[in-house]
Amino acid sequence: MSLAKTILIIGVGPGDPDQVTIQAVKALNRLDVVFLMDKGAAKDSLIEHRREVLRRHAPDRAIRFVEAPIPERDRTGDYEAGVRDLNARKGDVFERMIAEGLKDGECGGVLVWGDPALYDSTVRIVEEIAASGRHDLEWEVIPGISSIQTLAARHRTTLNRIGRSIEVTTGRRLREAGPRADSVVVMLDAENAFAGLDDPEAYEIYWGAYVGAPEEILIAGPLAEVTNEIVRRRAAAREANGWIMDSYILRRREPDE
Amino acid sequence: MSLAKTILIIGVGPGDPDQVTIQAVKALNRLDVVFLMDKGAAKDSLIEHRREVLRRHAPDRAIRFVEAPIPERDRTGDYEAGVRDLNARKGDVFERMIAEGLKDGECGGVLVWGDPALYDSTVRIVEEIAASGRHDLEWEVIPGISSIQTLAARHRTTLNRIGRSIEVTTGRRLREAGPRADSVVVMLDAENAFAGLDDPEAYEIYWGAYVGAPEEILIAGPLAEVTNEIVRRRAAAREANGWIMDSYILRRREPDE
Ligand SMILES: C[S@@+](CC[C@H](N)C(=O)[O-])C[C@H]1O[C@@H](n2cnc3c(N)ncnc32)[C@H](O)[C@@H]1O
Ligand SMILES: C[S@@+](CC[C@H](N)C(=O)[O-])C[C@H]1O[C@@H](n2cnc3c(N)ncnc32)[C@H](O)[C@@H]1O
Repeated sequence: MSLAKTILIIGVGPGDPDQVTIQAVKALNRLDVVFLMDKGAAKDSLIEHRREVLRRHAPDRAIRFVEAPIPERDRTGDYEAGVRDLNARKGDVFERMIAEGLKDGECGGVLVWGDPALYDSTVRIVEEIAASGRHDLEWEVIPGISSIQTLAARHRTTLNRIGRSIEVTTGRRLREAGPRADSVVVMLDAENAFAGLDDPEAYEIYWGAYVGAPEEILIAGPLAEVTNEIVRRRAAAREANGWIMDSYILRRREPDE
Repeated sequence: MSLAKTILIIGVGPGDPDQVTIQAVKALNRLDVVFLMDKGAAKDSLIEHRREVLRRHAPDRAIRFVEAPIPERDRTGDYEAGVRDLNARKGDVFERMIAEGLKDGECGGVLVWGDPALYDSTVRIVEEIAASGRHDLEWEVIPGISSIQTLAARHRTTLNRIGRSIEVTTGRRLREAGPRADSVVVMLDAENAFAGLDDPEAYEIYWGAYVGAPEEILIAGPLAEVTNEIVRRRAAAREANGWIMDSYILRRREPDE
């Protein structure tokens, strides 16, 4: 048995515990430890989702939970600098959890919401710790269904038009740069950037909150017609649940539509 | 029991039969019929992949295969028009398969390579048939892991940089319009568009072929340094296997890298 510690970064989908792959289930069943590094208003729901994933798909595995309270991002300055600073502190916390919470030869997991490749810092954090050479680490990434795929599936639509490009971006960048492709997928939009587009008549929107989960809400239609409804439902759901995760596809209408 | 026919469009991942979700496995176990509409050089491998997925994950289910020979796309004219024309003909073939191959109350499936939301026509085709009103159809889409997620996971990298956008595009559009985001993900590139960029010194590339499958090849590095190697390995693999599916992430190098 190798004395290295193993870290598995496992995508567990955006809300439905059955949206994990068989590959992910096999990975879950190798874990000795699950690291939890959540924060923010959705924290309890995110942790409960992971526990449910494990109850369902690794019921016979005795897994220890190692939890770290993650400091909130500094929201006063530049966004990217704030995230980088947060990641540095997360990196320190995570390194301590690996050192103290995981024994040699053991396997620790980070269960990432959605897909680890999309707007998630775990890969960068583990890469840095592994590269530091301070630990004998092996690590692997297991992809997961991302929220935008579930969004498209639940709306029974596609992300791209035939042969066209897709831009995946954030609410912040949409506000700053506008839509830059035929289809634009927007995540991390806390401030209804869709409602501020110059030319709402030109777009269809496919919006979804809590996609894959029981609370799921879906609204689609011409942007100009459904903006108010989305703003209203979004505020009400956030109020009711204490948090919201939503994303949307904006699609430029074709001249012949 | 409803007399409607049900169509499930099920994403089955890009090459590893274990990269299907539990949700997809449950859907596979509802199927009476699987429709096959493959074409091109990879056809046999694609069909064999589906059979393996079913052998592994729906072993006790008696499923009929209904296969349709799909005509090749007309490659002489405009690309999008060619795809649209192909889809119209695919739609006719598929409608006939539903009419003749699926009984009332039965459930038929299309097992889509990767994720149905990315560069795949099945959703559009089924949507049109359902909208025609000529059949009593219910239909659902089940997302799958796409090749670009597995590409990122196998390279242990992310699709986006912190807070930045991603462009997902085709080889054809990359050639025509160049990279238009900090991270560009390229699919459907039959002609090595990465080798023709104006400023190869400015990019890192993460390239992969047959990702998730036993034949997988991964190459990453500064674009200017690895272009020749990718071109060479790509040609050799295509020759050896008779077909290739590859994609890549281009990431603009940061000034401080
Ligand atoms: C920090 S990012 C993480 C994305 C995640 N890695 C993924 O693949 O979906 C969080 C953003 O993802 C989107 N998101 C995550 N889960 C969602 C859900 N269930 N429904 C709608 N959007 C969701 C929202 O835009 C949210 O602001
Ligand atoms: C018609 S598109 C279908 C994409 C698929 N729906 C998905 O989600 O991956 C085919 C393109 O996907 C990419 N692709 C599919 N499977 C792949 C694999 N196993 N490895 C690398 N690229 C792949 C290639 O760029 C290929 O040209």
